[in-house]
Amino acid sequence: MNIIKAAAEAKKAKIRLTELSTEQKNKALTAIEKGLRLNINKIIAANQKDFTKAEKENLSKPLLKRLRFDEEKIKDTIEEIESVIRLDDPSGKILSATLLDEGLALYKVTCPIGVIGVIFESRPDALVQISMLCLKSGNAVMLKGGSEAKNTNKILADIIRNAARKAGIPDGWMQLLETRQDVNEMLSMDEYIDLLIPRGSNEFVRYIMQNTNIPVLGHSEGICHVYVDGDAEIKMAVKIAVDSKCQYVAVCNAAETLLVDKRIAKKFLPAAGKAFNEKGVEIRGCERTRKIIDAKMASEKDWSTEYLDYIISVKVVDGLNEAIEHINKYGSGHTDAIVTRNKKKAERFLDLVDSADVFWNCSTRFSDGYRYGLGAEVGISTNKIHARGPVGLDGLVIYKWKLYGTGQTVEEYASGKKNFKHKKLK
Amino acid sequence: MNIIKAAAEAKKAKIRLTELSTEQKNKALTAIEKGLRLNINKIIAANQKDFTKAEKENLSKPLLKRLRFDEEKIKDTIEEIESVIRLDDPSGKILSATLLDEGLALYKVTCPIGVIGVIFESRPDALVQISMLCLKSGNAVMLKGGSEAKNTNKILADIIRNAARKAGIPDGWMQLLETRQDVNEMLSMDEYIDLLIPRGSNEFVRYIMQNTNIPVLGHSEGICHVYVDGDAEIKMAVKIAVDSKCQYVAVCNAAETLLVDKRIAKKFLPAAGKAFNEKGVEIRGCERTRKIIDAKMASEKDWSTEYLDYIISVKVVDGLNEAIEHINKYGSGHTDAIVTRNKKKAERFLDLVDSADVFWNCSTRFSDGYRYGLGAEVGISTNKIHARGPVGLDGLVIYKWKLYGTGQTVEEYASGKKNFKHKKLK
Repeated sequence: MNIIKAAAEAKKAKIRLTELSTEQKNKALTAIEKGLRLNINKIIAANQKDFTKAEKENLSKPLLKRLRFDEEKIKDTIEEIESVIRLDDPSGKILSATLLDEGLALYKVTCPIGVIGVIFESRPDALVQISMLCLKSGNAVMLKGGSEAKNTNKILADIIRNAARKAGIPDGWMQLLETRQDVNEMLSMDEYIDLLIPRGSNEFVRYIMQNTNIPVLGHSEGICHVYVDGDAEIKMAVKIAVDSKCQYVAVCNAAETLLVDKRIAKKFLPAAGKAFNEKGVEIRGCERTRKIIDAKMASEKDWSTEYLDYIISVKVVDGLNEAIEHINKYGSGHTDAIVTRNKKKAERFLDLVDSADVFWNCSTRFSDGYRYGLGAEVGISTNKIHARGPVGLDGLVIYKWKLYGTGQTVEEYASGKKNFKHKKLK
Repeated sequence: MNIIKAAAEAKKAKIRLTELSTEQKNKALTAIEKGLRLNINKIIAANQKDFTKAEKENLSKPLLKRLRFDEEKIKDTIEEIESVIRLDDPSGKILSATLLDEGLALYKVTCPIGVIGVIFESRPDALVQISMLCLKSGNAVMLKGGSEAKNTNKILADIIRNAARKAGIPDGWMQLLETRQDVNEMLSMDEYIDLLIPRGSNEFVRYIMQNTNIPVLGHSEGICHVYVDGDAEIKMAVKIAVDSKCQYVAVCNAAETLLVDKRIAKKFLPAAGKAFNEKGVEIRGCERTRKIIDAKMASEKDWSTEYLDYIISVKVVDGLNEAIEHINKYGSGHTDAIVTRNKKKAERFLDLVDSADVFWNCSTRFSDGYRYGLGAEVGISTNKIHARGPVGLDGLVIYKWKLYGTGQTVEEYASGKKNFKHKKLK
C-alpha cells in the first residue's frame, strides 16, 4: 500500500466519520468485538508465526514478551472493547454557548481531531486498543506496527476492518502501514496526520518527538520524585516511598529519585533504607545520604536516569525550595509527590512543581487513567498543551465554533446599527 | 543578551509566576499601564528613530505602516491593558474533581503553560498586547521583534519590565531578543519554550510552523468560503457574500471563494455580480459561472489563493456535497459559511466542513475574539489540537492534576484491600 494513497483515504474517511452517531459507532465496536472473538484461533496462529520468526532472529526477551499475543491477552484486549463501548462519546459536547445578538448564537462544540497516526513497537494489543478509541471518538487512524508483529497486525486489521465495514463504518478509516520507511514518511505528513501517538520505549518516543512537526501526544521518560518534607510523618513517608518505587518498577510513574529534607533525614533515612533493603532496592545516595545510611555514590547522571528497576537515587536537600528546584531541573514533568503534614508547604509544592501530576501524601503510582476514573487511556502526556497527564478519550477530540445566524453582516455591527449582547447561554 | 541565558531566566521565572495571585498580576498590569502613559513621548521619539531609518532603507509601505507607533496607536494599546485587567484570570480554575476514594481527592486545575515564545514582524503594539496577556495568565515570555522596530521595542520592554519589577513581578519573566539569528535559535529551543506564537505575514507564519517542533499557535492562510445553497434566500445570500468579501478585505476571515449551487446559480449570480461590481470586486469564475455572468477565467490556483484584496473566485457546484469537498480540499480550515433555509443541509455543512469556524446564514467576518465575546485575542488558530479558531486567554493555560491523599499506596488497591469509588465531585 502506497503511504500517500493510504493517507489520502484516511483524510477522506475522517470527514465521513464525523457524521456517525454514537449508536452507529457502538454498533461497529460490538461487531468488531464479535469478529475478534470468532477468530481467536486465527489470531493465535498468526502470532505464533511472528513469534517463531522473532525467536529465530534472536529478538530481545522484553520484545518477545511484548510480541506474544496468547489467548489470555487476546481475551483481555477484547474485553477492553466493552469498556470503550460504555464510555461517553467525547464528540458533540457543547463546551460553551453565547448569544452574540438576537438570532445569532455561537456554540463551541467538541469534534474529532481528524487523522491520528499511531506508531507502536511489538505489542499487537496496542493496535486494537488505539483503533477502538479512535473509532469511538470518530477519528480515522493510520497505524504503523513493528515488522516483527506483521502477521498478527495484518489479521487484526483485517478482522477489524471487515467487521466495521459490515456495521456501516466508511472504508478507509483504518490504515495499516507495513514497512520501516513508512515511519519516517509519516513523520513528515503534517498535511494528512493531525496528531501522532507513539507507543514504545523511551528512545523510540523521543525519536518520534524530535523528528516531526506534527503534534505528538505522549511522554518519553518518567523521572518521578518523592519529596519527604521535614514535617512528614515518618511511617507514612516510608510507605509512600516504597510503594512509589517498588509497586511496579518497570513503569513510567514509578519513582526514581527520593528527595529528603535535611531536618528529617536522620530519622527518615534509616527507616527507608531498611524498607528498601527488604525489597532488594539498590540505593544510590548523595554525600549527605551516605553519611546516614549505606548507599552507593550517586553521580550527576543518576538524577536524570529512569532506572525502571529496583534502584533508587536519594538526595538530602535543604528544604522545600531545593526540592522544587531539583524536580523542575532533573524531572520529566510526569509525576511528583510530597509527603508532609504541612498543608501550606504541600500547596506550594503542587503549584510550583511543573509536572503533569503533583501529589500530596500518596504514591506516584496513582497517575494512571484507570485509577483517575477516565476509563480507557490514550496515553500519558508530558506535553504542555492540549492534554496533560493520563489522557482519556477527551484527548482525541478538539472543538469547532458553530455560529447560527439569520442573515447578519459584520458591517451592521461595525457601523453601530446593531450592538453585540454577548449573553452567556452556557 | 545570550539567548540561552535569556531562556534559562525565563524558565526560572515561569515557576515563580505560578505563585502570583490575580490581584498581584492586576496590580502589575495597572503599574505597566501607568508607566507607558507617563512615557508616551519617549516611545514616540524611539519609534521616530526607527521609522526614519526604515524610510531611508526603503522598507515597503505596508511594513512602514505597521511600524508606525504614533500617539493614537499608543493610547489604543494602553487602553487594551485595561480590558486585560478586567478579564477573568484563566489560571487556577477547577475543571473537574473526583473523589477516588475516601481521603483521596483528584483535581484537574488550570495553570500557565510556562514560557511563550513570540516572534513578530514590525508592529510594536504586538509586543505590548501579547506580553500583557502572558502576564495575566502567568506565563513567562520571550519576544523577538523585527529589527526595524528595535528602538521602539527596547523602550517598551524597558518600561514594562521596570513597572512590573516595582509591582513585585519576578525578574526574568519578559525577555527581549534582538538579533535575526535569535529566531532560528528559538525554533530549536523546545527545552525552554513551550508554545510559539508568530505574528506576521502568511509566509512568515508558515516558515515558523515548518521549521520547529515546538507547538505553534496560529494560522497562515485564511482561505474562507461562502456556499450559497439551492435553498438560500437570494437577498440574504448576496448581503452575506458581499459582507464576507468586502467588509474588510485585508484580513484572514474575509471570504476568498464563493461556491454556488447550480440550482440557484442563474438567479443568484446576476444579483451577486451586480453587488460585487458596485463594490469594485473583480470576479474570477469557473466555466459555469462565466456562462451566467461576466467574469475572468479562474485557474486552478485561484481556489487556493488568499487575495486579501477586492477579488473573489466563484465556482458553480452540483450541490452541498461538492461544496463540502471543495472546502475541505482547498480551504485552510479557518472560517466557512453556508447560506440556506434548509436546517438539515446547514447542520450537515457545519459537521462535515473541517474548519475552526463554521457558520450558517451569517458573514465569515464574525470569526474574531472580540465578536465572539472572548475579550483580548491571543490569535486565530487553525490547529487541530489545544485551541482552535479565535483564541482568548484560555489558550495560554493548560491544566495539571493535583491529587490530595492521606497516605494511600497503589498496592492497597492492587491487592484488593481497598476499592476505588470514583465519585464525581465536579
